[in-house]
Amino acid sequence: MKTDLSPARGMRDLLPATVAVRDHVLAAITDVYRRYGYRRIETPALENIERLQGGQGGENEKLIYRVLRRGLDERVAADTAVGDLIDLGLRYDLTVPLSRFYGQNRASLPDPFRSFQVGPVWRAERPQKGRYRQFYQCDIDMLGEPSVLAEIELVEATTEALAATGLADTTVRVSDRRFLSALAARAEVPEAAWDGLFITLDKLDKIGWAGVRAELTGRGLPEPQVDRLTDTIEGLHGVEAGKLVDALADALPNLGEDVLADLRTTADALAVLAEQRDLRWEFDPTLVRGMGYYTGQIFEIVHPASAGSVAGGGRYDRLIGRLSGTDVPACGISIGFERIVDLLGGTPERASVAVLYDADVPLAEVLAAARRLRAAGRTVSPVRRRGKFGAQLGRLEEWGFGSFVHLRADLLDATAELQERHLGEA
Amino acid sequence: MKTDLSPARGMRDLLPATVAVRDHVLAAITDVYRRYGYRRIETPALENIERLQGGQGGENEKLIYRVLRRGLDERVAADTAVGDLIDLGLRYDLTVPLSRFYGQNRASLPDPFRSFQVGPVWRAERPQKGRYRQFYQCDIDMLGEPSVLAEIELVEATTEALAATGLADTTVRVSDRRFLSALAARAEVPEAAWDGLFITLDKLDKIGWAGVRAELTGRGLPEPQVDRLTDTIEGLHGVEAGKLVDALADALPNLGEDVLADLRTTADALAVLAEQRDLRWEFDPTLVRGMGYYTGQIFEIVHPASAGSVAGGGRYDRLIGRLSGTDVPACGISIGFERIVDLLGGTPERASVAVLYDADVPLAEVLAAARRLRAAGRTVSPVRRRGKFGAQLGRLEEWGFGSFVHLRADLLDATAELQERHLGEA
Repeated sequence: MKTDLSPARGMRDLLPATVAVRDHVLAAITDVYRRYGYRRIETPALENIERLQGGQGGENEKLIYRVLRRGLDERVAADTAVGDLIDLGLRYDLTVPLSRFYGQNRASLPDPFRSFQVGPVWRAERPQKGRYRQFYQCDIDMLGEPSVLAEIELVEATTEALAATGLADTTVRVSDRRFLSALAARAEVPEAAWDGLFITLDKLDKIGWAGVRAELTGRGLPEPQVDRLTDTIEGLHGVEAGKLVDALADALPNLGEDVLADLRTTADALAVLAEQRDLRWEFDPTLVRGMGYYTGQIFEIVHPASAGSVAGGGRYDRLIGRLSGTDVPACGISIGFERIVDLLGGTPERASVAVLYDADVPLAEVLAAARRLRAAGRTVSPVRRRGKFGAQLGRLEEWGFGSFVHLRADLLDATAELQERHLGEA
Repeated sequence: MKTDLSPARGMRDLLPATVAVRDHVLAAITDVYRRYGYRRIETPALENIERLQGGQGGENEKLIYRVLRRGLDERVAADTAVGDLIDLGLRYDLTVPLSRFYGQNRASLPDPFRSFQVGPVWRAERPQKGRYRQFYQCDIDMLGEPSVLAEIELVEATTEALAATGLADTTVRVSDRRFLSALAARAEVPEAAWDGLFITLDKLDKIGWAGVRAELTGRGLPEPQVDRLTDTIEGLHGVEAGKLVDALADALPNLGEDVLADLRTTADALAVLAEQRDLRWEFDPTLVRGMGYYTGQIFEIVHPASAGSVAGGGRYDRLIGRLSGTDVPACGISIGFERIVDLLGGTPERASVAVLYDADVPLAEVLAAARRLRAAGRTVSPVRRRGKFGAQLGRLEEWGFGSFVHLRADLLDATAELQERHLGEA
């Protein structure tokens, strides 16, 4: 029998060494957020299809895995719409489920509610190297907190969580959607064109100023407006943290006092953090963040080892209300779980001991030896002697064992100390 | 806007207190198996539908959530078979994915391979109280080990894992499918009727001997055969562990020497364990275990607090080969994760501190106070003062906080010790 044993297209199996790295990252993150009072929740993988197709998911809604209704006839009646055959879909993110969860369970949740979610989401994307159709998202959100306490705490907890995984030395990039709106308004860009403007700005990293200018004029923005925009942005790039709020007030007189006060509070708090930890922060006037639902400060956290950001998020005060009918101020950060796992790679522990036993050793002796080593705190697995000795030791090493004891029937002595030998030190 | 915010039918949201119990159980189990060298793997939730419908899943195959192909036309052509519209399904257990995983990745896995899996599976069952259409399974398996070392180690590790969750005082029920076959053969039951016979025997707990006898004669078994069967079983019930193997050899001369030797080894090992730990074991001649794929010793682990078993499994030497084309001896135990979580219930920790701050306290002071408490190892969350003081303290207690500090603008003193007060001790 010859069978194709690959995972379904675009999916992957996670082998023990990979899972070990994932578990390490997850444990480090979970422990930090727990100490900030974030509590893990879980929602089902399947949601009613209408909820997933509610229009807030953008392009992701096209990538939903749709699930057939149960109890259908074997043959589909002529002219049936595909939509009539389905009633459920696999979640494509953790935000839509969170909004449903919050609307449903608000009465029994703390206020503000500090939420921690980690789990798989599914998107039927074109398969490509390093991207999979099932992947983990890791979201922390504070729901019900209108002040920038939320923003600051989330950044503080997240940078600490990243450091706990092994990614210290992070830089926090900060901006504010209200700043971007004031910028566009001041340059007299019509409001209908703001989203396009922001999308172009977001590409500065990739296409440079020349590219951004070309795209903006291509979008029909007059040259003088483009000049005014780029001058304002350039003037704010690299402004010293202490002078940021004054610089913003000068550059954009139309910027609300509340926006300035919020940015001042965040800037001061990040300055305190930067003193205490291996952490930098900067205001980045070209930071946009893709999703359209942000309403206030936005963040990205970068690390020298990674080209893309390792975390990002911001305030989204109106989304939960739109999705669930329950209005609530909200702020969240998503950690790039899969990216971080890829960055950290595998670092096998090699702490486990193989109890290598000859075929004629009674199993009771094998089990007793394993038990003795385990009682001493070791990780222990019996393995039967087989094939050439050196070759088998090579395999044990490959499999991640760090050492072994060899049980031979002619040398059994339950009272003697077990002779442990290290692997890989020929 | 009025929206239905319930989870999809038969699904449920897991709130923080529930997730905390689940995480506790999972951490306890994981830690024990890790010390035995079991390594966690993960397979995708979606599998190709042909694999799931391969015929080894029994009734479960009727409960598969089937996933629509991507890129279908909006209207289904006349006379299309439902089967042509789908290509994937959600896994209904962890055994089918394990067999595919093992066949695919065997070359890079240790031999024997100690596998640990935990994760959701999906079954479109009729919704009923306490049963959900998405639930967790927790399977440990040893693949590649032909001897009862596998059986014994799995029972040893599992009873230790159960004790670590808080369920010590377990009893292990042992039988062997080869014993059941010998029993049926000795009573001259035709082989085609064995499965039905075993299914009836399995109901002894529920329907008693009278019920079993009625069902067996109803199945067409002559009275003398039924007598012989029940006499043999009754004679073996409650036999002292030390005399078990002799009793079996006497009662069933057709029982193979290998079966007796295996049972003797397992019995001796369990006797050693029972001396060392709070653990009992017994041979249970009516133990069957539902699935048809078992080939050797079978187990069930029960606990006084639970009507049903809390874990069960056995040897299934031919299943992996049938599913994947790669023959390998295999033995596994499945832990009743959801049942154990239900048994243990919620025991909130109450270790977290609320930093209750008046609206006029600068956020920097709030954050600094939280940071000071966290540096001392505490779990800390700021909460704004709001409403009547006593009522808010009541809410804090409801939300699981164990204590609070109250920050007031007129009493701020960054150097003073924070006055922590306990909740729920009026």
